[in-house]
Amino acid sequence: MKVVLDAMGGDFAPQVPVMGAVQAVKDFDISVVLVGDETLIKKELGKYSYPKGKLEVLHAPSSVRMDEQPSKALKKRDSSIYLGLNLLKEGKADAFVSAGNTGAVMAVSLFTVGRIKGVDRPAITAVLPNLKGYTFLLDVGANVDCKPYHLLQFAIMGSAYAKYVLNEENPRVGLLNVGEEEGKGNELTKEAYRLLKSANGINFIGNAEGRDIYSGDFDVIVCDGFVGNVCLKLSESLAKILAKILKEEIDKHFISKIGAITLKPAIKGFKRRIDYAEIGGAPLLGLNAPVIISHGSSNAKAIKNAIKTAVSFAQSKVNQHIEREISRIREG
Amino acid sequence: MKVVLDAMGGDFAPQVPVMGAVQAVKDFDISVVLVGDETLIKKELGKYSYPKGKLEVLHAPSSVRMDEQPSKALKKRDSSIYLGLNLLKEGKADAFVSAGNTGAVMAVSLFTVGRIKGVDRPAITAVLPNLKGYTFLLDVGANVDCKPYHLLQFAIMGSAYAKYVLNEENPRVGLLNVGEEEGKGNELTKEAYRLLKSANGINFIGNAEGRDIYSGDFDVIVCDGFVGNVCLKLSESLAKILAKILKEEIDKHFISKIGAITLKPAIKGFKRRIDYAEIGGAPLLGLNAPVIISHGSSNAKAIKNAIKTAVSFAQSKVNQHIEREISRIREG
Repeated sequence: MKVVLDAMGGDFAPQVPVMGAVQAVKDFDISVVLVGDETLIKKELGKYSYPKGKLEVLHAPSSVRMDEQPSKALKKRDSSIYLGLNLLKEGKADAFVSAGNTGAVMAVSLFTVGRIKGVDRPAITAVLPNLKGYTFLLDVGANVDCKPYHLLQFAIMGSAYAKYVLNEENPRVGLLNVGEEEGKGNELTKEAYRLLKSANGINFIGNAEGRDIYSGDFDVIVCDGFVGNVCLKLSESLAKILAKILKEEIDKHFISKIGAITLKPAIKGFKRRIDYAEIGGAPLLGLNAPVIISHGSSNAKAIKNAIKTAVSFAQSKVNQHIEREISRIREG
Repeated sequence: MKVVLDAMGGDFAPQVPVMGAVQAVKDFDISVVLVGDETLIKKELGKYSYPKGKLEVLHAPSSVRMDEQPSKALKKRDSSIYLGLNLLKEGKADAFVSAGNTGAVMAVSLFTVGRIKGVDRPAITAVLPNLKGYTFLLDVGANVDCKPYHLLQFAIMGSAYAKYVLNEENPRVGLLNVGEEEGKGNELTKEAYRLLKSANGINFIGNAEGRDIYSGDFDVIVCDGFVGNVCLKLSESLAKILAKILKEEIDKHFISKIGAITLKPAIKGFKRRIDYAEIGGAPLLGLNAPVIISHGSSNAKAIKNAIKTAVSFAQSKVNQHIEREISRIREG
């Protein structure tokens, strides 16, 4: 199994991606191709010992900035993202991981590896920790305007991923909506509900409200990329803000400040449970090869876990299942 | 100033509304009309002493359940919501407060007091605590499908409310979107951005992302009611879930459990800062009279604060400002 890693992606590139790749080839029986500025990568690699032959470097003269427009990124044919994804297209590697510009990775992926046959719109899938496990929320930003059948395809893709990659036996699928009852919603979700309800092969259990994203009552929740993107950014910020308010209040009270020291083990456990570094990246579903996005502020552990996820993604052959399910729905 | 209170609204009616009304007439120089089951209300009132003549009771034979369809509520012409709002329509009272079914209050309000001239779609406005003060998010559920000019009207209404009721000098208005830059967004927000940018009389400072709802960088954020509703429910649940995870982790570690006791004053301060009971209810903006919704699980303090907000709403004459601004935009 060979995973391509964008060594220039993320806020701390190439240091963190290189460190994550070194950890990955030590811990897993895989090889990694680091794509990016050869001089910088080799300088970083010099700091570590690792099994030779399991890490290759592919030079990419340019890279895509975090804030660069996807349309501009598409024209950089010598970027780490472009050359890395091209290895997948040519069948020379099994999966691609980047902590870089999500929009750019999606755009270049569409242009190089393309879509799974029958899939209209690949989706960015956020993997969110809930009280019991994880919720897959898709789409979180690739498709800001959706048709009802796009949401049906998201349901099929998310469900297949939960089943074949995460071994969730019968993933419970929900439609993000403004109320629980059938008949609630906007034009998009009312029609999507009808499609989801009559679709075979997915375990659609009904509407999910905003509160259900973290309730653990759903394994997969589908929505258009506008709503999903807002939810994702809102969640990240709210966790930070609540922690900040709590800290401000603790600092106001001397006795609480003393007590807070004893909380360290609990806080550590808390952070681990909501930490994206434990989760291992967000799959771009619907593309014709396994592509994983890691958080821009990923540390080496997050990169390593994203590589691990990419390997599971490739080994599961989930894309074949998605292709089969989509074609069955289209014919049905 | 006379405020009508739906005594049958909320999870703990009529006990909590009656207690809230008693507190309000003691604390503020106003009178309150309690609408609902006369026998039940009078039984509750018997428990308290309060300035006579400041609390009236209006009997309503029926009430609207929390889960009742707005269309059904509209037909209950003898409900506490209907009879209460009718007092506003007849000019016999200045404002209406309910902790009951938001959709029903909106529907009956539209039918009785009606809309401000020029307003196409009244909006439910959530008042959310941020790190520095409050953010008004609208719409959070009345209009799940919106046109760009609806979002412009929301901006005018939210801005006027922040300015005249909350004395915010030059409220910073944002458009909820998937990116900061102009040109980002779905069909709705791209066009709404154009309208907001060229509108006079509001201080539009650009796109707000999901993370900005609680950042304090915006005073008013506009969105369609679908996105707003999902954000509101997501926020409420996420705060609860994070608190639950933290508690689970504290319980796991004996030393943290001891330390947690010392945190009580900090936790109390924390709760006060994020507590809806302190906030005083959500205005329904665009209706031809002041209508305030209080949280379904309101306690007496929350009801009292909602009544206080209703009084400020009525005294500010913000609806006259909204009518003037909307007509100026329509002509301009």
